[in-house]
Amino acid sequence: MTAVDQMLTTHPKAGSIDAQDVLARCIQACIECEQTCTACADACLSEDLVAELVTCITKNANCADVCAATGAVLSRQTTVDLEVVRAVVEACRTACAVCAEECEQHADMHEHCRVCAEACRRCEQACSDLLATL
Amino acid sequence: MTAVDQMLTTHPKAGSIDAQDVLARCIQACIECEQTCTACADACLSEDLVAELVTCITKNANCADVCAATGAVLSRQTTVDLEVVRAVVEACRTACAVCAEECEQHADMHEHCRVCAEACRRCEQACSDLLATL
Amino acid sequence: MTAVDQMLTTHPKAGSIDAQDVLARCIQACIECEQTCTACADACLSEDLVAELVTCITKNANCADVCAATGAVLSRQTTVDLEVVRAVVEACRTACAVCAEECEQHADMHEHCRVCAEACRRCEQACSDLLATL
Amino acid sequence: MTAVDQMLTTHPKAGSIDAQDVLARCIQACIECEQTCTACADACLSEDLVAELVTCITKNANCADVCAATGAVLSRQTTVDLEVVRAVVEACRTACAVCAEECEQHADMHEHCRVCAEACRRCEQACSDLLATL
Repeated sequence: MTAVDQMLTTHPKAGSIDAQDVLARCIQACIECEQTCTACADACLSEDLVAELVTCITKNANCADVCAATGAVLSRQTTVDLEVVRAVVEACRTACAVCAEECEQHADMHEHCRVCAEACRRCEQACSDLLATL
Repeated sequence: MTAVDQMLTTHPKAGSIDAQDVLARCIQACIECEQTCTACADACLSEDLVAELVTCITKNANCADVCAATGAVLSRQTTVDLEVVRAVVEACRTACAVCAEECEQHADMHEHCRVCAEACRRCEQACSDLLATL
Repeated sequence: MTAVDQMLTTHPKAGSIDAQDVLARCIQACIECEQTCTACADACLSEDLVAELVTCITKNANCADVCAATGAVLSRQTTVDLEVVRAVVEACRTACAVCAEECEQHADMHEHCRVCAEACRRCEQACSDLLATL
Repeated sequence: MTAVDQMLTTHPKAGSIDAQDVLARCIQACIECEQTCTACADACLSEDLVAELVTCITKNANCADVCAATGAVLSRQTTVDLEVVRAVVEACRTACAVCAEECEQHADMHEHCRVCAEACRRCEQACSDLLATL
């Protein structure tokens, strides 16, 4: 049981969004993807061919910021504004898809882009799964 | 000329989004709204009747997080993914509208909620104005 | 192997800070503690006796923000400014200790505070371990 | 009167840190420096000679993250842990000084680095001024 699961199950309003598991997986995916994207942007900066990776770095940075906001919003159960949740999770799914697509293009050359693309795809999927329950 | 304007005009790709002014105002509105919402959540926590303000505090916190991500994404011009920008700015507009609506309900009792509602409405409008140019 | 480990080992400058394991554990602890603190602040807001928890909520929020910054700074290896790293990790250790101490005072009454205190203590320890290697 | 000032003066615990003006200036400097550093990292990424700017980009990103955390922590007055405040503001002062020093080295070539260096120096000074009152 992860800390994310523990925090959801010990919350006084546990269960106010259906499908607690789907929610927990999405929060977990967001915080992992945020860190992975921050690390990938930095790893790209250390590559000799950094000039070819500036698009990747920008998409990494955007994805990290959107994942951070999404993970935080989803962690709050006191009041759940479905309209806000839906819009934020949709933005996150889009940012993850865009970043994954970019990283996949040089996953063969840069191992960190491969790892990052996988994290982005997991988060994109977790966002889709959550949106399907809302 | 604000620092936001200066940074936009000195960027090597200055002008890659049309309507630089509208963009600058939206970035400025996001960073101000982020701070105002963080401060309003904290001011609500210090009120005697905090129990009546938990919804407001939650909306403040969500709005601050979404504004932070939006201000950062909009500050990046190296690659502009219109799909990501649009989704993030729409989420920001929604979060600001939801927070403003809540704060306005007790703007008479809590001056900080009045100031915060105004910052949220400015940011909501700035997001709408930016979306209209995309 | 976590995503954090994978990103560190696939970085072009892998190993520029000694003790990669200690670094990975600290990054992991920071991102978990950030999420746990955000969730604990929100869980406290949902308690009937929220008025008695305002100090806890404030410390949670501060700890989450400092952990977020620390996890990001530690994820960057392209240039490592030891002076900045040290100052940020010290601030993180302090914020975690202060938050843990508060949460422990009502860990018996609020399960989420118990879980959060544990995450804060793990992160405090991970920061101490990392500082010992710098 | 800025929104930062308004939020400080309308807070139920207005004045719990002495020297409210110094505090307001530091919060304002943090949020401006955060945005400027995010924008400077991105502007550097768009320069032809990006390979020579990777250190600058990394310091920009670190400074932005630390300024964000500091601005948020300083915006919270419900409980003020001087130990946490001091550690965070010291980390911010260090991150700003390190980033300013780097940006100043190519302020002649890159106007955005000149603007960013100024924002970092203002924030470094604001942190020093605040530390002197604690």
